[in-house]
Amino acid sequence: MDIKEYLREKKVLVDSFLGDYFEGKSRPAVLSEAMNYSLQAGGKRIRPILCLAACEACGCNSSDIVSFAAALEMVHTYSLIHDDLPAMDNDDLRRGKPTNHKVYGEAVAILAGDALLTEAFGIFAEPSSFIKAGAQLAAMKELSAASGMKGMVAGQVQDMLSENAEPDEETLRFIHRHKTAALLSASVRIGAILSGAQAGVFEAISTYGDSAGLAFQVVDDILDIVGETEVIGKPRGSDEKKQKLTYPRLYGIEKSRSIAEGLVAGAIESLRGFGREADPLRGIASYLLSRTH
Amino acid sequence: MDIKEYLREKKVLVDSFLGDYFEGKSRPAVLSEAMNYSLQAGGKRIRPILCLAACEACGCNSSDIVSFAAALEMVHTYSLIHDDLPAMDNDDLRRGKPTNHKVYGEAVAILAGDALLTEAFGIFAEPSSFIKAGAQLAAMKELSAASGMKGMVAGQVQDMLSENAEPDEETLRFIHRHKTAALLSASVRIGAILSGAQAGVFEAISTYGDSAGLAFQVVDDILDIVGETEVIGKPRGSDEKKQKLTYPRLYGIEKSRSIAEGLVAGAIESLRGFGREADPLRGIASYLLSRTH
Repeated sequence: MDIKEYLREKKVLVDSFLGDYFEGKSRPAVLSEAMNYSLQAGGKRIRPILCLAACEACGCNSSDIVSFAAALEMVHTYSLIHDDLPAMDNDDLRRGKPTNHKVYGEAVAILAGDALLTEAFGIFAEPSSFIKAGAQLAAMKELSAASGMKGMVAGQVQDMLSENAEPDEETLRFIHRHKTAALLSASVRIGAILSGAQAGVFEAISTYGDSAGLAFQVVDDILDIVGETEVIGKPRGSDEKKQKLTYPRLYGIEKSRSIAEGLVAGAIESLRGFGREADPLRGIASYLLSRTH
Repeated sequence: MDIKEYLREKKVLVDSFLGDYFEGKSRPAVLSEAMNYSLQAGGKRIRPILCLAACEACGCNSSDIVSFAAALEMVHTYSLIHDDLPAMDNDDLRRGKPTNHKVYGEAVAILAGDALLTEAFGIFAEPSSFIKAGAQLAAMKELSAASGMKGMVAGQVQDMLSENAEPDEETLRFIHRHKTAALLSASVRIGAILSGAQAGVFEAISTYGDSAGLAFQVVDDILDIVGETEVIGKPRGSDEKKQKLTYPRLYGIEKSRSIAEGLVAGAIESLRGFGREADPLRGIASYLLSRTH
């Protein structure tokens, strides 16, 4: 299959939901403007797309769950806005554009992040004619677990505590698993949960999510060193400058590439019981890897 | 009924749930420590208690919904932590103790707030043997609506934009209705929703919530001027110093008291169709008012 075409198509689907979702929707207007600014700042919508692809791998119609998938992008966007704050990573640029607080100020940026997170849960609670209420609750639990104190937020706290620290394999793995992989992996699982996947199918999809999620972060670390600013949307080497704990810092570029290859191979292997309906998931994993070459 | 005894009893119930909820629950440990610090900083648990009392007014057993009620306190606590940040109200004291960022630093404070909000939604998504999944989803929608871009967050943004602004009745009402009343009112409605209340009952409870919620904020404004530091937990006059838009600033103390009285009377009136099961709700509304004398 043409994975680039698939990614493009699904991105259009997600963007059409997000497009005017916040337009003129808040008083004061600056709040939804700030929310929309970061949401429309050129994300690849990889979490929503993983969610849609997992739904298809389970034999379901992904257009039934676009709102849930799009809500995952809101959670991701909130985390980026907060991570970029002066008190955290203090980044001025994100995806090549001024960060939220650079445009709207710190207070509005914090609140825009808060509101994006809150809205995402609101969307997950919206009654749906396609999804059973019990499945919605389970999906929401997954989202909360992946993004809260035992997931993404924990990863971000550990990441900050580890700046300038001696590289240490276990800590690195903790940060990556929590800060990035948890939500990516949850996106895949949520697609399966909303599709009503049975235990065996869910297990396989879940294993795929864990491996692909971690691979994604390793690839991101590599791109921070070898990528072009236009591709990665922030100045090359910005992790290095902050002495962030990364795979290349600990293992070097070549070994990091091998690790990513191993993770992607594992992700694809976990889908061996699936037919062509899982081709998008397979394609996304391979595509990830191709970005590092 | 002895409302003070009722408040004490229900507070014990909520505190027993919250007590060790976060203890030793996160890695890095500082995250759950920070979450717990603000959660245990002496709140009156008024939102959880309103939720429990509304559940009882609908004829249900409030001990079945303690986790949901306690989650409302997490949402409230997150909002306090973020409101106190240097970029926002820049408060050093809250309920007589150093604010979260004064103890843990800004980054951890922001993330502790994020994690509290996320955890609250996780609790709302937890399967319950007492509550129907559809009611849980509806309760969660209510929570998201009350606390997000059309609720609490909107109120906070407007509040910041209005510091040092000319007092204006419509804006004041907007801020109070959104920043504080929305979550208080939602707490009441969520108690009714989780009890499976029918439309008529829900309407009445909802009207109570709107009036009592607004009364609560007017009373808080009054206490900022006439209260003792020990009672209000922050230096008296701190709203005034920041030129916050408040009821006393716009109407003076006496007229503000009359407004609060009117709101409380309206709240109690909306419960005329209820029997003794609604006495706690009535009692809470009257108790609010008594604090200003």
